[in-house]
Amino acid sequence: MEEVAVLYSGGKDSSLAAHMLSKYCKVKLLTASFGILDSWKYAEESAEMIGFEHEVKKFERNIIEEASEMIIKDGFPKNGINFIHRQVLSATAKENKLVADGTRRDDRVPWLQLNEIRSLEDTYGVEYLAPLRGLGYKTINRLAIKIFKIEEGESEKIQRADYEAEIRTILKEKGYEVKNFFPAHKQSRVIGMRR
Amino acid sequence: MEEVAVLYSGGKDSSLAAHMLSKYCKVKLLTASFGILDSWKYAEESAEMIGFEHEVKKFERNIIEEASEMIIKDGFPKNGINFIHRQVLSATAKENKLVADGTRRDDRVPWLQLNEIRSLEDTYGVEYLAPLRGLGYKTINRLAIKIFKIEEGESEKIQRADYEAEIRTILKEKGYEVKNFFPAHKQSRVIGMRR
Repeated sequence: MEEVAVLYSGGKDSSLAAHMLSKYCKVKLLTASFGILDSWKYAEESAEMIGFEHEVKKFERNIIEEASEMIIKDGFPKNGINFIHRQVLSATAKENKLVADGTRRDDRVPWLQLNEIRSLEDTYGVEYLAPLRGLGYKTINRLAIKIFKIEEGESEKIQRADYEAEIRTILKEKGYEVKNFFPAHKQSRVIGMRR
Repeated sequence: MEEVAVLYSGGKDSSLAAHMLSKYCKVKLLTASFGILDSWKYAEESAEMIGFEHEVKKFERNIIEEASEMIIKDGFPKNGINFIHRQVLSATAKENKLVADGTRRDDRVPWLQLNEIRSLEDTYGVEYLAPLRGLGYKTINRLAIKIFKIEEGESEKIQRADYEAEIRTILKEKGYEVKNFFPAHKQSRVIGMRR
């Protein structure tokens, strides 16, 4: 089976994406770390609990600094997070033939447009797989709950390794009110298999 | 496991969609027939060869007549085929909680816009699943070839139960040159499991 690198936060979306692909590919989970926090450890724990290989991929702190500047200037996180996601996907595509993430139909961020997907695939000669992109949040929640043990809570409390965690830290360091950029929302973290 | 109704032509896309979903749901394949041809039989054969339950859902001939008029007026099949697909999805959504199809990322037709998907889901209280919507043609071809035995050929020759087969017949009956509306393209039909 060919190996697919699945960008992984420890949340239910990227966990379900990995689970779906594991029927067809050897799954390797990848978590980006920008050196601000050690939140990648939570992803590593989740990965272990659901039984997939896991790697941490280190990136320069300046990527997340630049994204934070965009977010401060824009007043909302969309462009900054997409900027990070594209950097992470490109770096992953340099080292892996199959690159996947857990973006889903109802996501607004991060989100690749069709032309960005084709550009990524053509530039690096890879395939980009987003197995949740045709599924709605109801379907994803229903499936994830059946498969995984999940911890849920407010985004500030749940320990996850998504881009947001490190951006929040930078924004706080710079003296900004995080909630002006990231309104409180529910987050989930996978903490084991249900079956 | 909950049951999902997967719209099924016997081609590799709808076969792969069914295969992916079968990890999480009980799959029932559904083929639409408009009473013009008995092309549903090919889908029934393919369904049997890959081991899924199969039903034929009969529709009024006038749906495909109306679609053909749209196609003749437009000079291209997009709107007519989308019209049929929406009718079939709505009818299926009246009788099934989970409704799926094999539309994929690089498809142009049939294709539901995000607002159409949400309208379908809200109107009928269903979930719409399109598991190939986040996968490109390379990925789909690679996976399908690994899983299924596939017969390939020109669209006129391959015996499939897609909307096109019946529309072609109507166009011919009306004296039109089919190739003016449907340029020759490769089609596939699944004829068994490889593993």
